[in-house]
Formats: sequence, C-alpha cells, structure tokens
Amino acid sequence: MSEKKIHNLAIIGVGLIGGSLAIALRNAGVTGNIIGCGRSEANLKKAVELGVIDGYTHDIAKAVQAADMVFVAVPLGAMKSVFEQMKDTLPVNAIVTDGGSAKACVLDDWLSVFGNEKQFVAGHPIAGTENSGVEAALPDLYRNRRVIVTPTSSTDPANLKQVIGMWEACGAEVSQMSVAHHDQVLAATSHLPHVLAFGLVETLDRLEEHTEIFKYAAGGFRDFSRIASSNPVMWRDICLANTDALKPILDQFIEELQQLSSVIEKHDGERLLEVFNNAKQARDTYVDGLE
Amino acid sequence: MSEKKIHNLAIIGVGLIGGSLAIALRNAGVTGNIIGCGRSEANLKKAVELGVIDGYTHDIAKAVQAADMVFVAVPLGAMKSVFEQMKDTLPVNAIVTDGGSAKACVLDDWLSVFGNEKQFVAGHPIAGTENSGVEAALPDLYRNRRVIVTPTSSTDPANLKQVIGMWEACGAEVSQMSVAHHDQVLAATSHLPHVLAFGLVETLDRLEEHTEIFKYAAGGFRDFSRIASSNPVMWRDICLANTDALKPILDQFIEELQQLSSVIEKHDGERLLEVFNNAKQARDTYVDGLE
Repeated sequence: MSEKKIHNLAIIGVGLIGGSLAIALRNAGVTGNIIGCGRSEANLKKAVELGVIDGYTHDIAKAVQAADMVFVAVPLGAMKSVFEQMKDTLPVNAIVTDGGSAKACVLDDWLSVFGNEKQFVAGHPIAGTENSGVEAALPDLYRNRRVIVTPTSSTDPANLKQVIGMWEACGAEVSQMSVAHHDQVLAATSHLPHVLAFGLVETLDRLEEHTEIFKYAAGGFRDFSRIASSNPVMWRDICLANTDALKPILDQFIEELQQLSSVIEKHDGERLLEVFNNAKQARDTYVDGLE
Repeated sequence: MSEKKIHNLAIIGVGLIGGSLAIALRNAGVTGNIIGCGRSEANLKKAVELGVIDGYTHDIAKAVQAADMVFVAVPLGAMKSVFEQMKDTLPVNAIVTDGGSAKACVLDDWLSVFGNEKQFVAGHPIAGTENSGVEAALPDLYRNRRVIVTPTSSTDPANLKQVIGMWEACGAEVSQMSVAHHDQVLAATSHLPHVLAFGLVETLDRLEEHTEIFKYAAGGFRDFSRIASSNPVMWRDICLANTDALKPILDQFIEELQQLSSVIEKHDGERLLEVFNNAKQARDTYVDGLE
C-alpha cells in the first residue's frame, strides 16, 4: 500500500473478522506491534499462540493508548461501550475504524461519544463465515473480497485514505458508499437471508417430528441453512441496529411469499415457472457470474 | 448387493439423478446393458460418450421393451405421460421405480395408468445438486446418502427388496416411509427452502438497484441462494405435485416471519436472541451433527 505503515495496531475483538485482519496485515508487512483486546482470556491466549497478536489486555483504555490504528470488531450492540472506554486514552492522531455490518448505528454511537468524526472512518468487510473466534480467522479472508467504507462529508480524507490502504494491503477491493445506501444493500443481501435461515430452522425445529425432518435434510438444506449457525448475539444486534432498512425488505419478502403461497394453492404453474425462471436467471447471471 | 443382477436397465431421463444411478450401478458391477431415453439428442450422445449408458432411444416404448429394471427420473409433471408410453411394451416381470421428489402424485399417476402397483416401487434419493444434465452426474452422488422408498400395503415385497438392493449397491442408506409422511418431510426440508430461495432472489431482482445489490452479496448469500439456480421446470412440478404438504408449512413459515418482523419492529432483543439461539443450536446439533 502507498500509505504509511501502521506502527501500533489495536484490535478490539479478536475473532474471525479482527483476527483475519491482523494476520493479513502482518503477512503484508505493513504493521508493527499488534495488541488484542477482548473478554475471553482463552481466546486471547490462543490468538497469541497462533501469532495473530503480539500481546493482549482486557482493558480497552490500555489497548488503544499507544495505537495509531484501532480496529473495532465487536457485535454492534457493544460498539458504544467500546467507544466510551477508549475515549480518554485514544491518542489524538490515532484512527479508529470498525467492521460492523450496519453503519448508521455505529456512526451514531461514535458521534454520541466523540462528538465529531475527526478520528473515525466507518467500514465493513463483506466477508465472513458462520464460524466465530480467533481459530476461525483466515489469512486470506479478505483477498479479492469487497470492503465498503462509508465516509460522510465530515470524514477526514487522510484518515479515509489510510483505512482504504489498510484494506487494500489485505488484498481487498474497497468501495465507497453512503451510510444509508450501505445499510439498505446489506439488509437485502445479508441481514434478510440470515433472518430467513434462523426463522426456517426455528419453524422446522418446532415441528413434532423435527429430529426426523433434519435427518432427511439434503445438501441443499445444509447450504441454505448454514448461516443459521452464525453468532446469535451478533445477529440480534444487527437486526436491532438496522431495523429501518431490514423491516421494509423483510415485509416485501413476506408479501412475495404470500403471493407464491396463493399461486401454489391456485396451481398456477405458468406463474410459478415465470418466477422460478427469472430467479434462476438472476442468480446465474449476477451471483454465479461474480463468483 | 444380495439381490439378483439387473440385466437390462432402462433410464428414462439421463440427467444428474438418472445418470449418477447408471454410473454407480455400472461401477458396482450389478448391471448389464444400460439404455437411456430422453428428448435431448445432445445430452444422450454425451451420455454415451461419457460411458454412462450403452445406447439410447427417444422412444419410451422401445427403451423399456427388454428391461428388467426401469428407473424414471423426469420432472414430476412428465411422469404420467412416461408411464402411458411404457404401458404396452413393459415386460411383465420388469420393475419400475422412480426418483421423484414427491411420492403421492407419482403413485397416483402410476395407478391411473396401470391400475395396480404390481410392477411399481416409489423411491426418492435424497441427493442432488443445483446442476442438471448428464455432465453433472457423479459416480458417488448416492454414496452414504439417504434414499427413501415409500412402499404401500400393495407393493410387491420381492420388487421392494430388489429396488432397495439397487440403491444399496450405489452405497446409499435406504429408509422406508409412508407416502404421506415422505411428502411432509420433504416439503419441510427441501420444497420449502427452494421456494424461499427462488422467492428471495426474485424479490431482490425486482429492486431498482438489483445489479448493485447482488454485487455486494457475500459468501453467505451465495450458499443461501444456491438452490435458486435449480431447474425451474422441475421445481414448478414439485410445487404443483406436493401442494397439500407444501402449502401448510409455507404458511407456517410466513407466520414465523410475520412474528419476527414484529419482534424486530418492537426492538425485542430478548425474543430475537431466543429464536436465533434456538435455531443455531438446532442446526449445529441436527444438521452439522449429521454432516
């Protein structure tokens, strides 16, 4: 990257997202000391063992006190408290960025604590798996994946450049988007599918014969429901944080299902085929075409 | 397998399901000549080239005339016509079985043509991918996968044994289930998820910014929506054939989503976490546990 090296990187939340960033930056040779911060002693010890971080503390104030870059990768519901805990010790030249899956709420949290965006750049790596914890971290998690940054008119351009450079050093392709647009796009492609997967498994689990039902689930169901194995706290927080964008698209999808239910009841094969054909074509074109 | 060898196997519909059965039986050394039947000349030629079948015809009556085992792997909407076309030439000792994803409709079709179950055993291999055609066929598609057979009180026990043996020779684990129960279980674990995947992609595709939305779809969405790349005709037929079992579970799921939508609107984090935790636990236990 063309940007200056990160001398002291603080990772708040050393799990899949934070851990993968640490590994990728270290492998790219663009970071000096990496300090991890989190609540689980076992996870942080494992992170040191794996060489993901150089040291750790449970104290956020201490974790950031020598940092020039802070990456916050905690569930959205914990963001505000993390910002509060770093407020008094954050060096004036440090940049803070995050990996939260919704951006309006994180920016609100930041502003409510710091009052201005001088040190903050909101970001979101579009990557991840259903696994959590530092042991799930991967050196190439971000390679050729998209990272969205959502600067506002108040974002410091030099800080933005530095954060973009950090992600590019991991091999990611960085896009810029408005906060509101980010939250709508992610509600559609990520938050809604997670709600559907959790909801489907919950529906089937409530059926009397649920053990048998899951027993006959084939590969299609495994893929389809994989995201229902994601971290429940993280996804609760996303649903609460991005309600404004999520609720409309969820309701739109419910309407689509109601129509499909009526089409199926009426045995309207022509309409069903139209919908299925169009969906297949869209997925083959847009999703497979991009794989 | 302990059963007698198949001397002449006729595969009606040489795609992923029919082609994989042919390859597996040939590899197991339990079949003699395999004749394929279908509409696409190109697909049948490819099947001969690949060594999946020994020869082919487009004429169902001819395909079955020397067969001792007939496997019908066509979309559910084509079953009845296939049965009609084989009626006059099917040898009296031949066994007919199928791979349809719903069983009540296939049995009805059979009975409406043949009047009794003397030569028929209904079956369903719980395997497949979103790909179609003989080039998608895999030698191990059925290895360690489940196959459900749905005999009735009128099924010939010797025929049933022969069909079970055929699937076991492919490495499959065969279960027996009533027709109605099969159709309910599959509606929940397979037919409903396919409707949801098609419906979700359709909903997103109708959004103005659909190209951009799909562009930012991550791995979770790719897995989740993979089954929306399945064969639309096959899935239209399944929805029409299994309406009685599919509609109630679809409506139950719509109700679950309406509740989740209201929970999200009310910002009821406790309830959301309860649902997500339960779903994750169920998936980790029942689905991953069986992977």
